[in-house]
Amino acid sequence: MPDHDPLVIFMPSGKRGHVAAGTTVLAAAREIGVDLDSVCGGRGICSKCQVTPAYGTHAKHGITVGPDALSPKNAVEDRYDRVRGLKPGRRLGCQAQILEDVVIDVPPESQVHRQVVRKRAEAREIVLDPAVRLHYVEVAEPDMHKPEGDLERLLAALRAEMGLDALGVDFSLLPSLQKTLRQGKWAVTAAVYIDGPPTVIALWPGYHEAACGLAVDIGSTTIAGHLTDLASGEVLASSGMMNPQIRFGEDVMSRVSHAMMNAGGAAELTTAVREGLNALIDALLDDSGVGRDTLLDATFVMNPVMHHLFLGIDPYELGQAPFALATGAAQRLRAAELGLDLAAGARAYVLPLIAGHVGADAAAVALSEQPHKSDDLVLVVDVGTNAEILLGDKTGVLACSSPTGPAFEGAQISAGQRAAPGAIERVEIDPATKEPRFRVIGSDLWSDEEGFVEAIAGTGLTGICGSGIIEVIAEMRMAGIVDAKGLIGTAEETGSPRCIADGRTQAYVLWQGDAQSPRITVTNHDIRAIQMAKAALYAGARLLMDKRGVDHVDRVVLAGAFGAHISAKHALVLGMIPDVPLDKVASAGNAAGTGARIALLNLGARAEVEQLVREIEKVETAVEPRFQEHFVAATALPNAADPFPRLRAAVALPDVHFSGGATPNGPRRRRRRS
Amino acid sequence: MPDHDPLVIFMPSGKRGHVAAGTTVLAAAREIGVDLDSVCGGRGICSKCQVTPAYGTHAKHGITVGPDALSPKNAVEDRYDRVRGLKPGRRLGCQAQILEDVVIDVPPESQVHRQVVRKRAEAREIVLDPAVRLHYVEVAEPDMHKPEGDLERLLAALRAEMGLDALGVDFSLLPSLQKTLRQGKWAVTAAVYIDGPPTVIALWPGYHEAACGLAVDIGSTTIAGHLTDLASGEVLASSGMMNPQIRFGEDVMSRVSHAMMNAGGAAELTTAVREGLNALIDALLDDSGVGRDTLLDATFVMNPVMHHLFLGIDPYELGQAPFALATGAAQRLRAAELGLDLAAGARAYVLPLIAGHVGADAAAVALSEQPHKSDDLVLVVDVGTNAEILLGDKTGVLACSSPTGPAFEGAQISAGQRAAPGAIERVEIDPATKEPRFRVIGSDLWSDEEGFVEAIAGTGLTGICGSGIIEVIAEMRMAGIVDAKGLIGTAEETGSPRCIADGRTQAYVLWQGDAQSPRITVTNHDIRAIQMAKAALYAGARLLMDKRGVDHVDRVVLAGAFGAHISAKHALVLGMIPDVPLDKVASAGNAAGTGARIALLNLGARAEVEQLVREIEKVETAVEPRFQEHFVAATALPNAADPFPRLRAAVALPDVHFSGGATPNGPRRRRRRS
Repeated sequence: MPDHDPLVIFMPSGKRGHVAAGTTVLAAAREIGVDLDSVCGGRGICSKCQVTPAYGTHAKHGITVGPDALSPKNAVEDRYDRVRGLKPGRRLGCQAQILEDVVIDVPPESQVHRQVVRKRAEAREIVLDPAVRLHYVEVAEPDMHKPEGDLERLLAALRAEMGLDALGVDFSLLPSLQKTLRQGKWAVTAAVYIDGPPTVIALWPGYHEAACGLAVDIGSTTIAGHLTDLASGEVLASSGMMNPQIRFGEDVMSRVSHAMMNAGGAAELTTAVREGLNALIDALLDDSGVGRDTLLDATFVMNPVMHHLFLGIDPYELGQAPFALATGAAQRLRAAELGLDLAAGARAYVLPLIAGHVGADAAAVALSEQPHKSDDLVLVVDVGTNAEILLGDKTGVLACSSPTGPAFEGAQISAGQRAAPGAIERVEIDPATKEPRFRVIGSDLWSDEEGFVEAIAGTGLTGICGSGIIEVIAEMRMAGIVDAKGLIGTAEETGSPRCIADGRTQAYVLWQGDAQSPRITVTNHDIRAIQMAKAALYAGARLLMDKRGVDHVDRVVLAGAFGAHISAKHALVLGMIPDVPLDKVASAGNAAGTGARIALLNLGARAEVEQLVREIEKVETAVEPRFQEHFVAATALPNAADPFPRLRAAVALPDVHFSGGATPNGPRRRRRRS
Repeated sequence: MPDHDPLVIFMPSGKRGHVAAGTTVLAAAREIGVDLDSVCGGRGICSKCQVTPAYGTHAKHGITVGPDALSPKNAVEDRYDRVRGLKPGRRLGCQAQILEDVVIDVPPESQVHRQVVRKRAEAREIVLDPAVRLHYVEVAEPDMHKPEGDLERLLAALRAEMGLDALGVDFSLLPSLQKTLRQGKWAVTAAVYIDGPPTVIALWPGYHEAACGLAVDIGSTTIAGHLTDLASGEVLASSGMMNPQIRFGEDVMSRVSHAMMNAGGAAELTTAVREGLNALIDALLDDSGVGRDTLLDATFVMNPVMHHLFLGIDPYELGQAPFALATGAAQRLRAAELGLDLAAGARAYVLPLIAGHVGADAAAVALSEQPHKSDDLVLVVDVGTNAEILLGDKTGVLACSSPTGPAFEGAQISAGQRAAPGAIERVEIDPATKEPRFRVIGSDLWSDEEGFVEAIAGTGLTGICGSGIIEVIAEMRMAGIVDAKGLIGTAEETGSPRCIADGRTQAYVLWQGDAQSPRITVTNHDIRAIQMAKAALYAGARLLMDKRGVDHVDRVVLAGAFGAHISAKHALVLGMIPDVPLDKVASAGNAAGTGARIALLNLGARAEVEQLVREIEKVETAVEPRFQEHFVAATALPNAADPFPRLRAAVALPDVHFSGGATPNGPRRRRRRS
């Protein structure tokens, strides 16, 4: 035995201190402030506190760890190893006592706040710090002479374990409380929710390890949910479904109209989305095999109209100026208050809205993409029926939404369709021959590769999806088939027999059609629709740049499921986004969903997004005259070098001018869509 | 104008101070800390701040109040007087400005914490300090450039008005929030619940004055509710109904059995009591004309089994040792969580239980009768199917419950019935003639008075209620018809032909019967049942006296609806309670209901009862051997002077001994009832 209190050094933190000989590793970690997990309170049950003593000489620390640095394995560890298995070299931190100087490696899975690295290279890590904490406790048995109730004794045990003064309980737990305590022979695992006043929200007999949560993105068109293990951050199941509200209107404004025109219309829409969510939850539980009693938390992101309908609020006021939100603040609720079938005591967190047209989905994108921590000026665009746009850096962030309409999602396009097998998603056009090749969702072959026709036999060729229409128009522009005004040239003007007359304008034949599939063309009307949509998107971004006083941005992030499929080059060629170097355009995938998942896994992220939303400067496009000016100016496709020098440096844009065979349509009046 | 800041003296508090000339009376009151009400925040709308300036010379204070001490009535006061009327001499404190030295009388109805005096002479006052506060506020209108939601602007206005940092909102308010704000033209009255984190629980357009609450006593047999104005303390409507659980069993243990023996039995009982409560609420709202949206708070008292069933907890564990409560702590809930149809955001407070057999009703009795503040040693007995007994003074309080069974309520009695028209409730027997006279519920005439037969023609004579059976047996004892062992003498032994053979014992004929009504007798079996019940009650009290180390108490309070109808003399003659001077026995009426009403009207009383329950020493009769000894010793009726010297000093108890015509039944085994 050494003649001083043993020194213990925890790695990787490097935190160190002297402790009395005989102190357990877990107690030492708590004393020194090292992040070492424990659910069972040091009873040798949960094994969350596993550590690896690093024997041998540590020159860096100037100590040698001998074989007797820790106490030998005791009966509890032996039993754990026998029954559940310990990895070689591992010890239970709650059992192993420090006898001599020692270096202790804390593996990542034993750290309370371990980090989950998101898969995309550019993504930041999520620190695991969920709102649900599991605690295994032993509860005093009832005593006729001390008539405290079972609940009071449970709460006393948990308060002692957690070091809390006050602890509440979800009322839904009361009916099964006595049975659970007796089934567990007075040992239970409690789930304590710590976002708000600490509250017990679930209880299992004996030791229970699993706690799951749900991150949900309620889009106007689709609802996506991710069932996530709160202890590991792992996504156990993902599922998407059509938003059942679609039967009341494709876009949000037609749903607002439904609510306005029909008695009980808003309630119908609320019921529809909640029923849809419950179906989604059922599917996720089936897929993952997770028990409903283990699904304890859920986070939600959505646009303001979806938000109000989900919360049971008639979105009437969002349909007219001044677009007053009933509430924009983050909501902390019992999931049952939203009619959701999670565990009986489960909680829900609805991310805050940014403004009347800028939703919690945009807030989630901000949480995921962190413009407020960016050194360079970043434009984040969440492309959907309504584009939500963020511009900023660490000195400040601006936000607006822009009514792009549904063209980007394939609506209002002659051959447009949703992204589904059979839809053209990728297009290339040879600038010399003006001949196209394309790829179809569900097949890896290009249309000019052998076996293509056989490969798509199952679905046929059914239309063009949103990203496909962007690509084909951009390719047509680069191939000199479309001029900067958006006119398709005639066969004579372009030299391509694929340019055919289509009423008073031209169309480009992408696919001639066969016995199985219809002819697929891109009409001048299609191009006009995309011009309107992209002009709205561009005008929103320009408006924020005006407010910020800049004429260019350093980089662009395209978010949204659709954003994930647009290539930077094609977006730039169409002038959807301001001129930036090609390599400065990145896709963030479903950043809104990622933001929802971050808020599910990290309590601090909830405070962060609430703070961020308060600090973001909101810009209302509907009342900004410059928005309309930018919109009109942006309907043309990039051509003149001036506003797009970086684009012209990267891509050839033929300087063609077509008659189009007739006078093109002028810009029409647009109806606002959000 | 004086050459100093005017002096203002508020009466009746006598608080005084100098304020700047031009300060309003309301502002001065707040500055000096005087209790002056205001709901509208000084806008001249609510008139809660009405005061009366006391003009003339105040020798006591050394000042003279001149006619110009206050500013003349302004347009707001004139308008209020015209539209709603001001009493002569009254001013609106929020409008009248202090210009010179002045004495201001604050009438009781303008004091925030005014006191309501309960009607009984011995009762204490209730300070009005309910958990619901009304606030009239003006809310900023939406601004497209500041996208805070309507809710956020409402909460900001309320926080400013109330001086709060944090304020939540009940989720049920969200759907109607936007409409209410616009109906009120951005002026609304909010009800804020302050028991717990302050929360807005109701909202009305414009100015709204009414806020009501419900105090409920859920008895095994009957449920009683009092709809109370939270601003005045006035009871607007009271209603009682049979507990619908009665169809599952008369007493609580048979309901516990029902829950144990039938799948879903506990849930059936929960549904029954909640449905009953909703019917009661409907009746109270109908009676009072109060709108459901105004019914914002409710307090509940009941015994432990009723408590668990009301909260949706299977009372299984209460049916067996160690009689473990699921929870005994006070519950703060949304009324909707209990399935109750109050206002959508209404709250409920369930008083704490004392122990597994001593309920929230006993806690409410303690709150009402305040044994913990008594200078002398008081025994409080809540007489019902189960007697709940408190003994104590300001040095400490003991509590137990005693299984008296239902005999005191007329069950197990041959002619017994519930208290209802047609039941005998008062009895006198002439000691000389042994002839009875009695009174019947529904008539003021005694049976020997003229017109009695006609007076009861409507109902006939149907039986004897609980208090009637006590009286008749006590009167039989005092008239020498029953001896101390409880035996009825034969006609020969008593000299009364009303004593007739009834099997192996005797019965006393109280009413011979006629065409309309049956013969009504008191049998020896009836007396035996009352002896068992009173012995249990007495033994419980004795047990507490043992624990306390005393052989007598200073005074006795009889609580419970039944307690209200027992005369002190009769209770003493039967030996129901320990020997005290007759004038030291008081009735507290429905003290449990009063306690519920105190907890409804005074927030501090909730903390008080929770503290009191923690401090009360609980005694479990089921495991105390001395309880059984006391019970056996107490089955006889008082006779020997020894334990009842005070009783014998007041009442003649004939020293008779009867054969009863046969050997009386020995004491039988009793089944525990709670």
